[in-house]
Amino acid sequence: MPELSQRIQTLNTAGSDGWEVFYRARQMIAAGTPVTELTIGEHDIRTHPMILDHMHERARAGHTGYAAVPGIRPLRDAIAARVTARTGTDTTADNVVITAGGQAALFASHIALCQPGDTALHIDPYYATYPGTVRGASAIPVAIPTRARDAFLPDPAVVDRIARETGARSLLINTPNNPTGTVYPRETLEGLAQVCIDNDLWLISDEVYDTQIWDGHHLSPRALPGMAERTLVIGSMSKSHAMTGSRVGWIVGPQPAIKHLIDLSTNTNYGVPGYIQDAALFALNEGTWLETEVGEPFRRRRALALDILAAQNTVTAIPSQGAMYVMLDIRATGLSGRDFAERLLDARHIAVMPGESFGASAAGHIRVALTVEDALLAQALRELCTFAKDLTT
Amino acid sequence: MPELSQRIQTLNTAGSDGWEVFYRARQMIAAGTPVTELTIGEHDIRTHPMILDHMHERARAGHTGYAAVPGIRPLRDAIAARVTARTGTDTTADNVVITAGGQAALFASHIALCQPGDTALHIDPYYATYPGTVRGASAIPVAIPTRARDAFLPDPAVVDRIARETGARSLLINTPNNPTGTVYPRETLEGLAQVCIDNDLWLISDEVYDTQIWDGHHLSPRALPGMAERTLVIGSMSKSHAMTGSRVGWIVGPQPAIKHLIDLSTNTNYGVPGYIQDAALFALNEGTWLETEVGEPFRRRRALALDILAAQNTVTAIPSQGAMYVMLDIRATGLSGRDFAERLLDARHIAVMPGESFGASAAGHIRVALTVEDALLAQALRELCTFAKDLTT
Repeated sequence: MPELSQRIQTLNTAGSDGWEVFYRARQMIAAGTPVTELTIGEHDIRTHPMILDHMHERARAGHTGYAAVPGIRPLRDAIAARVTARTGTDTTADNVVITAGGQAALFASHIALCQPGDTALHIDPYYATYPGTVRGASAIPVAIPTRARDAFLPDPAVVDRIARETGARSLLINTPNNPTGTVYPRETLEGLAQVCIDNDLWLISDEVYDTQIWDGHHLSPRALPGMAERTLVIGSMSKSHAMTGSRVGWIVGPQPAIKHLIDLSTNTNYGVPGYIQDAALFALNEGTWLETEVGEPFRRRRALALDILAAQNTVTAIPSQGAMYVMLDIRATGLSGRDFAERLLDARHIAVMPGESFGASAAGHIRVALTVEDALLAQALRELCTFAKDLTT
Repeated sequence: MPELSQRIQTLNTAGSDGWEVFYRARQMIAAGTPVTELTIGEHDIRTHPMILDHMHERARAGHTGYAAVPGIRPLRDAIAARVTARTGTDTTADNVVITAGGQAALFASHIALCQPGDTALHIDPYYATYPGTVRGASAIPVAIPTRARDAFLPDPAVVDRIARETGARSLLINTPNNPTGTVYPRETLEGLAQVCIDNDLWLISDEVYDTQIWDGHHLSPRALPGMAERTLVIGSMSKSHAMTGSRVGWIVGPQPAIKHLIDLSTNTNYGVPGYIQDAALFALNEGTWLETEVGEPFRRRRALALDILAAQNTVTAIPSQGAMYVMLDIRATGLSGRDFAERLLDARHIAVMPGESFGASAAGHIRVALTVEDALLAQALRELCTFAKDLTT
């Protein structure tokens, strides 16, 4: 076999280890051992049948041929109107390209913004695919460290220093954040915006959890002065409408960048299935009740989790305001996040993600996905706290 | 706005012009002028309702979450069995990754095989996205010229010379061919295989039309001695099962390459919708009647077209054996393919693709897609021949 490219050989070599817990939990389940899975960010409900019925209706009506590569116009219009309404930033269909989910949007953005060899910054802890996505685009991922005591919020001064040192081309942020549940406050975003302007960086703003805010407000940094011209916003139907498997998302950005991203779509995915786009449009046109219904379990379970955690003092929750996770500090046990997760799985058949899976900054932490029903979650969290306490005595 | 990457700015700058005819035809239709469109490679039927009903059934049954990133196991197994049966080359699920259509497979293959700056070869004339796909992967596309009198079949000696001159990394071929309809004979494929072995090239074999053979046999070059270890085969449900819009395809190749391509999928599309994969599996399990039904109109219309063309001697058909196109030599008119297509559209409201849209080798030719019903096609071809003859007098 001739050699493969360096970029693909090195795609997953650094960072994001610790997925062994996830895979081992799946093996245990397959072998018949019940495990409470608090690992991946996927709803415990399925896509609403109304959405699926509409999809089928459109497919049966004949929308099964090549769809317009930029995305069907009514969906681009609907997303533009939605973004305008939610952020106050004028947005038209020319600012929108439909992608095969948020992940494809992240990859396309780095292909479009970075030259091979350019440095692309992201914040640590981070969603597990970020470094591989950057490497797949032949750029060099550099993680910006953060601290647990700052709720893992990035310090603009640190970003600025690293941007200068590396001559970075882009900065990728994610708010509401996976894995921490943090929603970046205005001052953080204003600081980051200034860093982008000072260093002529592109900002890639991953906002796929923007409908899941349990405390405070989401601010899209594209709305800040001078940022619309240097920001690509990643959006998706996955988290907001429980359409994870349908792979439909978008990029919102300056019209000249979107024009080139449409060319890229011609050469990568050749568009997104038309009937899935029809379904996404239908779901968006339903208004807020649907996304409220999808998000409600996470709002409820976050409150439940915080109550349980408040009743003890071994495990500390990172203050979070959104998304479907809580990040827990388990350093009082003296274990790494990975060792804690391994032992918890063996002893209590509860699977959580080691903080180390999301980068070095989250060492000594674990991420709990709020993706099982309330009573099971409560029981698992109580067991987890008892397990942690027993480790300290 | 900060600068975009060079690769995306230059994606569509060279070659594949002449799409103005296609867009102008669409504008005429939108303005109410009837145009016979013989331009793009899309069936005039839709996806079979049985397939869509099964898709809906699986979605309603809950297969709407993230699907396995490599592709669902039963689909990978089915494709492996199909490839083994059709080519005689042992193939297992480990040799298969599911992609978002053939286009995504082409892009992923070049990301996986080429370093930035590497030369990636392809044969001219070519499917319009090929050069942009290579450039999107930061490699340098080099077109291998062919000659009309050779039915646009590549000469292995020419490929060998250019591979040596450029130090190329990969060779992309397409049989049955779009735009020419040619099916590469064994001797051509054996010659190309030797060139790949001699120059340590990867072969990317785009075989998305492999169910549409009207004369002779399709040989997958992966089946030739020494080639399984250096060949990625691109397949798709688009053409075989009229599922163009569903964006489901695959790459078949050596297991270590597929393993890395699965990593890439994690970082690009994060898999393909599970219910679409279920639908693809259902369609494949139906056996050959479905693909025969989908292909039959093209078989019939190719024969019809050749009959009409045999009745005159201004326009000459390139000998073709498969796919859904005929390539016509119109050099007797003294016009370029582009000028001919422009004038034909204006004078007769018939839209065909200029050969120049598919590369310099096809200058003075036009591609006719056999994608309208028989009587309309026959009438359009007769008009086209009369139009060409009138130009010569």
